[in-house]
Amino acid sequence: MTFEEKLISSETVYEGKVVSLRKDLVTTVNGSSYREVLEHSGGAVIIPITDDNKIVMVKQFRYAAGRVMLEVPAGKTDPGETPEETARRELREETGYTASELRFLTRMYPTPGYSKEVLNIFIARGLTPGETDFDDSEAIDLEYMDIDELEQMVLSGQIEDGKTQVAVLLASRLTGRR
Amino acid sequence: MTFEEKLISSETVYEGKVVSLRKDLVTTVNGSSYREVLEHSGGAVIIPITDDNKIVMVKQFRYAAGRVMLEVPAGKTDPGETPEETARRELREETGYTASELRFLTRMYPTPGYSKEVLNIFIARGLTPGETDFDDSEAIDLEYMDIDELEQMVLSGQIEDGKTQVAVLLASRLTGRR
Repeated sequence: MTFEEKLISSETVYEGKVVSLRKDLVTTVNGSSYREVLEHSGGAVIIPITDDNKIVMVKQFRYAAGRVMLEVPAGKTDPGETPEETARRELREETGYTASELRFLTRMYPTPGYSKEVLNIFIARGLTPGETDFDDSEAIDLEYMDIDELEQMVLSGQIEDGKTQVAVLLASRLTGRR
Repeated sequence: MTFEEKLISSETVYEGKVVSLRKDLVTTVNGSSYREVLEHSGGAVIIPITDDNKIVMVKQFRYAAGRVMLEVPAGKTDPGETPEETARRELREETGYTASELRFLTRMYPTPGYSKEVLNIFIARGLTPGETDFDDSEAIDLEYMDIDELEQMVLSGQIEDGKTQVAVLLASRLTGRR
């Protein structure tokens, strides 16, 4: 039997730039318990596919993970943005591209055990190049790759970013090579 | 050009039960910047496959996400545990099963932009039933499902948990139905 936990009281323990953290007392099957909840505005994940069927990937150092990661473009929702608007803005900022076609694939909760964060995953086609515009503190390289190569990198453990694993496996499944 | 950011100074802003939070000042391409870093011990994700090819799934209310979710069994690493030990313990606690065969598939960083959390994903076979042993505050239902049905649920957006999306798409790809 699933039990829907209800809020009893809530305390904000940290308010930051990217994340904030709450500690909620909630009803549970056996009485009550504390739940730590990460507040995050969510974001958009984009699988940009060029006219010659290359996926535009971004490569950057991820400080928290302590390593360089190959990822699909993605970013955090700004206040008031729809998921489509976030996707178009992040695609342009990180890769320079604008897309004539944006197709929603699915939603992803990266860490539903303790976070509200939801990512909306899109495929973008009909790409037109332009200027990138990322944060001053960011250093991002672009790579153009085949979906089959990316799928092999997921299967062999060379791609370890969760949203990119989902995006690549979905795109590979949906572009119907097999 | 990827730029490896280096720590200048660090401040712990919250120490909790499931997560802790640091605010680090780091070197960046343009000077320095703050990075919020979630501390998490990581965990194991298990795809338990019965002798008649059913996947053992868990269904539970996720307070942070505010909904009931269908997920593969998973849980947080205890101090001193290897990924295999976490996988075997969580499989037993959440489903009651012990596995004669545990095969490592890949690692997944659910949110590498701000967190150190890493999940190790395993396929478990040769299952023997036993007693579950989950937290007093948890209420978990088991479901036995076909991999094809689960893959369709990922593709149609009915499965929204990130680790489960990766696990199902990988298992579907690797069990070689297509």
